[in-house]
Amino acid sequence: MEGSYEKTLDKMRERLDKANFSEWYNDVIELADLSDKRYPIKGMNVWTPYGWKVMQNIDTLLRKGLDATGHDEVCFPLLIPKTEFQKEADHIKGFDAEVYWVTHGGLNELDVPLLLRPTSETAMYPMFALWIRSHTDLPLKTYQLVNTFRYETKQTRTFIRVREIHFFEAHTAHADFEDSERQIREDLQIMKDLGKALCLPYVLAKRPEWDKFAGAFYTIGIDCLMPNGKTLQLGSIHEYKENFSVPYEIQYEDADGEHKYVHQTTYGMSERIIGALVGIHGDDRGIILPPDVAPIQVAIVPIYVKGKQDMINEVAQAVHKRLIEAGIRSRLDDRDIRPGNKFYHWELKGVPLRLEIGPRDIESKSCIVVRRDDGSKHQVALDELEDTLAIMLKETSEVILAKAEAMLEENTTTVLDLRDAIGDDDETIKGILKMPWCGSEDCAETIEKDLDRILLGVPVPIDDPNFEWDDVKGKESNCVSCGKPTSNWTYVAKSY
Amino acid sequence: MEGSYEKTLDKMRERLDKANFSEWYNDVIELADLSDKRYPIKGMNVWTPYGWKVMQNIDTLLRKGLDATGHDEVCFPLLIPKTEFQKEADHIKGFDAEVYWVTHGGLNELDVPLLLRPTSETAMYPMFALWIRSHTDLPLKTYQLVNTFRYETKQTRTFIRVREIHFFEAHTAHADFEDSERQIREDLQIMKDLGKALCLPYVLAKRPEWDKFAGAFYTIGIDCLMPNGKTLQLGSIHEYKENFSVPYEIQYEDADGEHKYVHQTTYGMSERIIGALVGIHGDDRGIILPPDVAPIQVAIVPIYVKGKQDMINEVAQAVHKRLIEAGIRSRLDDRDIRPGNKFYHWELKGVPLRLEIGPRDIESKSCIVVRRDDGSKHQVALDELEDTLAIMLKETSEVILAKAEAMLEENTTTVLDLRDAIGDDDETIKGILKMPWCGSEDCAETIEKDLDRILLGVPVPIDDPNFEWDDVKGKESNCVSCGKPTSNWTYVAKSY
Repeated sequence: MEGSYEKTLDKMRERLDKANFSEWYNDVIELADLSDKRYPIKGMNVWTPYGWKVMQNIDTLLRKGLDATGHDEVCFPLLIPKTEFQKEADHIKGFDAEVYWVTHGGLNELDVPLLLRPTSETAMYPMFALWIRSHTDLPLKTYQLVNTFRYETKQTRTFIRVREIHFFEAHTAHADFEDSERQIREDLQIMKDLGKALCLPYVLAKRPEWDKFAGAFYTIGIDCLMPNGKTLQLGSIHEYKENFSVPYEIQYEDADGEHKYVHQTTYGMSERIIGALVGIHGDDRGIILPPDVAPIQVAIVPIYVKGKQDMINEVAQAVHKRLIEAGIRSRLDDRDIRPGNKFYHWELKGVPLRLEIGPRDIESKSCIVVRRDDGSKHQVALDELEDTLAIMLKETSEVILAKAEAMLEENTTTVLDLRDAIGDDDETIKGILKMPWCGSEDCAETIEKDLDRILLGVPVPIDDPNFEWDDVKGKESNCVSCGKPTSNWTYVAKSY
Repeated sequence: MEGSYEKTLDKMRERLDKANFSEWYNDVIELADLSDKRYPIKGMNVWTPYGWKVMQNIDTLLRKGLDATGHDEVCFPLLIPKTEFQKEADHIKGFDAEVYWVTHGGLNELDVPLLLRPTSETAMYPMFALWIRSHTDLPLKTYQLVNTFRYETKQTRTFIRVREIHFFEAHTAHADFEDSERQIREDLQIMKDLGKALCLPYVLAKRPEWDKFAGAFYTIGIDCLMPNGKTLQLGSIHEYKENFSVPYEIQYEDADGEHKYVHQTTYGMSERIIGALVGIHGDDRGIILPPDVAPIQVAIVPIYVKGKQDMINEVAQAVHKRLIEAGIRSRLDDRDIRPGNKFYHWELKGVPLRLEIGPRDIESKSCIVVRRDDGSKHQVALDELEDTLAIMLKETSEVILAKAEAMLEENTTTVLDLRDAIGDDDETIKGILKMPWCGSEDCAETIEKDLDRILLGVPVPIDDPNFEWDDVKGKESNCVSCGKPTSNWTYVAKSY
């Protein structure tokens, strides 16, 4: 029984073409059933079971990184009184036009309007002021995984620009600037590990002054590159110094009895991570999930032959049980539909490995394993199954990471002269441009206007999170705009 | 360095007296650091790391039960358009005065006001109408764990009556009434398993017509009894029949091509579970956590002796490592404070077992294990440690469950005449009263007024979730109010 919705899906699958990235992105999310955007409020989407499971697996990885570095998970209220929100002047300026306001409770107008958190500084810091008394309370390292809200006026896009956002935010407080800077480096290391597990390469950029987070001393953006040449900010890490602790009066008594303000940092990331996974790894057959976060790592498809159905099912079930016991997330697909349809189904959903088992395989005590990333087929001996699959999952991770890294590298272009930023088609070269920039706002404006791109900021080292800011310099060159000698560089790109 | 806040805590600890239940409840939550109610919006509290961990452990148990019965976890948007909310007439009547309204996005007034979900029927069912097409889509079994909101006008109390509620809600859709009734029985079984793991006895009561959930066909309340004699509704299970599927047009095509409305159920529970754990199990020394959800199951306290500190630490660390490897949630407390203070600390936080280890213990290859529930001390051989502790954790669960069951039984009184419901002090007997009631609203009113109690509803069997509604009857007797013969009974209690 095929309904009209199923037929629409079939047509959608047939036309999947990553070259038309924007259409492909929307279609593949619907086909893989990651999210449903038909909810009656635009930009507030429903997490369907499969998409939510991917998100939870990403959250689990994050929690692991945060717990291992001594962060405590907390959960703060969603609503923030307007009075608290207004304490840090830059912060409110940055968010004023973007927040949702609760003005009524039941039939009563509230005395103080409440806003839905766009992020939780102004919810947390009044409490930090109560929690932190002495230097022995420091560092205070907390994080939460919560829903946050932005009243987006731009066009919404699943995972990438939404109005209810699944958000991770770490908030820390430190005795001095040095310790808060150590925290930034710890965050960079956590991101490095996470990026590896998600097979997601990215660049780090210290944002220009005018683009830093509202209230921050400085902001490091974590940007990855989507196949359409636009960068997508996955998250950001902020040094606040004393910018919030002063208005929120977060003070501690040091060992000598002196009262001092804490230095604070935050590290935030959102569901955009899934948007990046979909966009960067997927292909014309569907999405491709990194094994570490795939809800199903191996889909078992029994190949039935008349009269041998029971026997085949029995073996398939035994294989499934073995995989589960070995800690591999396996799914046995024993539905009564043609194997070909099952293949399509699990390819669309990005399951890293497909295991086919039929009577001939059973005879030869083996099975066929097909890798989602490159479609390669492998005969695998049943008695070496667990080890072989574990290796194949690892290889899948390595290959899709390498592919993504190659894509990022190919699309990162060093530009020493603004004219070199224009390709043969008279358009600005796609991807990330890296160019010397004197650091002045005037030159930035010229660059952005000439190239129809924005400055992401100064490249920050990725491989060694323990860099010194003084050493964050590029080769001595000349600003692409004014020509002044400079060792300051910037990334430039079109950005979501 | 002891601050004034520490001194306040010391005083609070000294005066902990469960006989003054209300004060004790607030103090013990603060002392165990489960929640912080100093957030600037009353009834919206901060989940501190320890309390949040307990809640997450309860959530994990719940997820296990729901996943094992084929439910899929989803996550729906928080905001609901007023237009969707108004579709089911009884439902909106029940909630109208209790919801928070979002009226502005940024500086704009919204065309359609949005409300913060008090529960998610009206968010989910427009989507169910899209998801459900055919009988092969049924049953649809989903659940989510989310924040919900009620504009409470009554006095708030941590975990028990709050304005932002950590909420579990399962929503299912079925082909017919029979299948939805099977779902109710599955929910009752899940609750039974959960109650056991949490060592929480409870009663089930089919609520009177006027007290059922807004829009439900019938409601089963899950009530436990707090030490002050009040019942606390932990959650509820609802049969909706077609009450929501008709207004939300959730139809499916059956095998014969006929279009029919689905039958729906829900099962909801909230953070009140923690309130019950605190209230029912705690004592004058602090809270007592059931081992299944205790973030720390064993606290290791090394007993230092001058000159042997390093050796003792080494052994304590080895013991800690062994426990972690055995899957026991262990915490090594090697802080530089007196052991007595550590004992107090972990008692307050309800850690089921305390393990003390000093030089004499090490000599005799043993350690001392103290049970939180009864304070009993046990010498345990180090080479049998894992097994012995596992047994002691199991015993702790059994004992605190048995104690709670005894408390519930002692405070459940059968009453055949309203005069028997009044004690020697001329007050209505504390706890749960069980009495024959003809079923009429008039008699209910008389009972409620005379006793200053409310009717919880008809007792529903707990031990066998597969009961038949026709058999849900008590001994033939006479209504306590009108005297008419009846086999219908009701629970009556003072309720939170």
